[in-house]
Amino acid sequence: MHSEFELITRFFTPDPPGAEAGVTLGVGDDCTLLAPTPGQRLAVSVDTSVAGIHFPEDAPAVAVGHRALAVSLSDLAAMGARARWCLMSLTLPAADDDAWLADFARGFHALCDATDTALVGGDVTRGELAIGVTVMGEVPPAQALTRSGARPGDLVAVTGALGGGAGGLALWQRGERDTGHPLLQRYLHPLPRLEAGLALRGLASAAIDISDGLLADLGHLLEASGVGAELTPDTLPLAEGLVTALGEEGARQAGLHGGDDYELLLGLPPDHLDEARARLAALGLALTVIGRFSDRSGVQGVTVTGDRGWQHFSGGVAP
Amino acid sequence: MHSEFELITRFFTPDPPGAEAGVTLGVGDDCTLLAPTPGQRLAVSVDTSVAGIHFPEDAPAVAVGHRALAVSLSDLAAMGARARWCLMSLTLPAADDDAWLADFARGFHALCDATDTALVGGDVTRGELAIGVTVMGEVPPAQALTRSGARPGDLVAVTGALGGGAGGLALWQRGERDTGHPLLQRYLHPLPRLEAGLALRGLASAAIDISDGLLADLGHLLEASGVGAELTPDTLPLAEGLVTALGEEGARQAGLHGGDDYELLLGLPPDHLDEARARLAALGLALTVIGRFSDRSGVQGVTVTGDRGWQHFSGGVAP
Repeated sequence: MHSEFELITRFFTPDPPGAEAGVTLGVGDDCTLLAPTPGQRLAVSVDTSVAGIHFPEDAPAVAVGHRALAVSLSDLAAMGARARWCLMSLTLPAADDDAWLADFARGFHALCDATDTALVGGDVTRGELAIGVTVMGEVPPAQALTRSGARPGDLVAVTGALGGGAGGLALWQRGERDTGHPLLQRYLHPLPRLEAGLALRGLASAAIDISDGLLADLGHLLEASGVGAELTPDTLPLAEGLVTALGEEGARQAGLHGGDDYELLLGLPPDHLDEARARLAALGLALTVIGRFSDRSGVQGVTVTGDRGWQHFSGGVAP
Repeated sequence: MHSEFELITRFFTPDPPGAEAGVTLGVGDDCTLLAPTPGQRLAVSVDTSVAGIHFPEDAPAVAVGHRALAVSLSDLAAMGARARWCLMSLTLPAADDDAWLADFARGFHALCDATDTALVGGDVTRGELAIGVTVMGEVPPAQALTRSGARPGDLVAVTGALGGGAGGLALWQRGERDTGHPLLQRYLHPLPRLEAGLALRGLASAAIDISDGLLADLGHLLEASGVGAELTPDTLPLAEGLVTALGEEGARQAGLHGGDDYELLLGLPPDHLDEARARLAALGLALTVIGRFSDRSGVQGVTVTGDRGWQHFSGGVAP
């Protein structure tokens, strides 16, 4: 076993150390010192990814590193916050594997670089493989996108496409290992919609990221906003290749219940739709209206039978 | 298994929600929004405590909750930072135990209250018992206590008493279960020296917390400061009851190498000693000079044989 210090130095020291924006004292002291932007709110969140529960134990290390950060950054995206910093708690089995660690670090750092997120601290312990990532971002006080702002009459809209996470997981479980397959790409390398979150400041009335499945996360948003919704399920934007992979009904179920998509689910006043679409189009991202919020509680337009909550890797969509 | 939401709501929602200082949006949205104090640096650190490695699997739940937060807060203390907020990643075995969780939460929240630290986020996953705690504190830019400021001629000083963590662990391993025993108390309920860290702003030239053992952590401080040290081991302030529990030589070894004490190890210019002692005395805490920093590299005055790094629970002091 490497010592904690050696591991952190070898794989997790930014290069050059301390050169990241807003970091006034870098990794290597008791704490890292950061300089928050005056007048901004600090948005914080933590997510832990456990092998065999949140991702398959044989997932590529580069994807494990990417996903562990992506799922946390997705929470910043859903607040309309700009990503700034992150800390990582890495729990590793006793058996070392330098090649695995190097790939894991590559996936993690590549997403740090792509999203301007500085890794500013962490620790390494022994145990079952798990990665906890705390993210910190910034947002002006009045511009945060919360779950509680949806009003009756607002449109229900989603970024990008749905069901890709579930489709990719299904393919992985069938033995597909071509990581270039679009659905596997969606599952293994989800992209947190940070730029979309920034673009939607001042336009969206509410936002949540779709990690547990469209209907589950819609439920959280409805509860926080105290409203209901009427969906038009035929309008769901399904991920490319999903019908081919899962069939018509499987694709529909994946779109409604599949998790791990990390798209944004939005409340949007109708007169903001054109501007929101234009801004997201400039980012290469579709915005699809899938229904409307109402003052009638619950979700109309979709028949849901049984418990279909998303179980991430451990169970897929419940039957 | 409780759902994550139910668990967080039952055991980890501050009461009343959102009423904590500096929290503008509390637990329950994608992120928590915080209002950092203008002009301060944000000090951040994360530590993960794993059952069977960092604490015995049969440790009292209230102590597990306390210690998980204490070890992270200790890093803020060592920076001279004021504790503000924390986030917790809780990994729990599949088998639920409401009584255990209630006790765990009691220990965690009690230390939150005692240190004015607000729990502002977290997640719950299934797996081997582990608790990751990210802490955030604040310190004025020029007043942070770093590891790198010790200069030749400065005194080497420690707060409180040493060896209590190792002594308590040894008693626990022998079957002692009277948690009122002073050494068990030291091991199970270590107190992060936050008030001491604040009091030492402007006085100490360097600081680190003693989590891995005096000599190991002194080594980190010497490396960061680019100096050496001459110790006077007979002056080590040993924890109450340590000689009785471990014998003369065992107590000496615990003082030099035992970890989990969470006292502060300091560099102190000699003309700051009286003021530092007075301020710590006002907190009920001793400050003991145990040597002097020098320009001769390494540690003089102590004979160290073999690898005596502290292994927390998994191995005690290496032979």
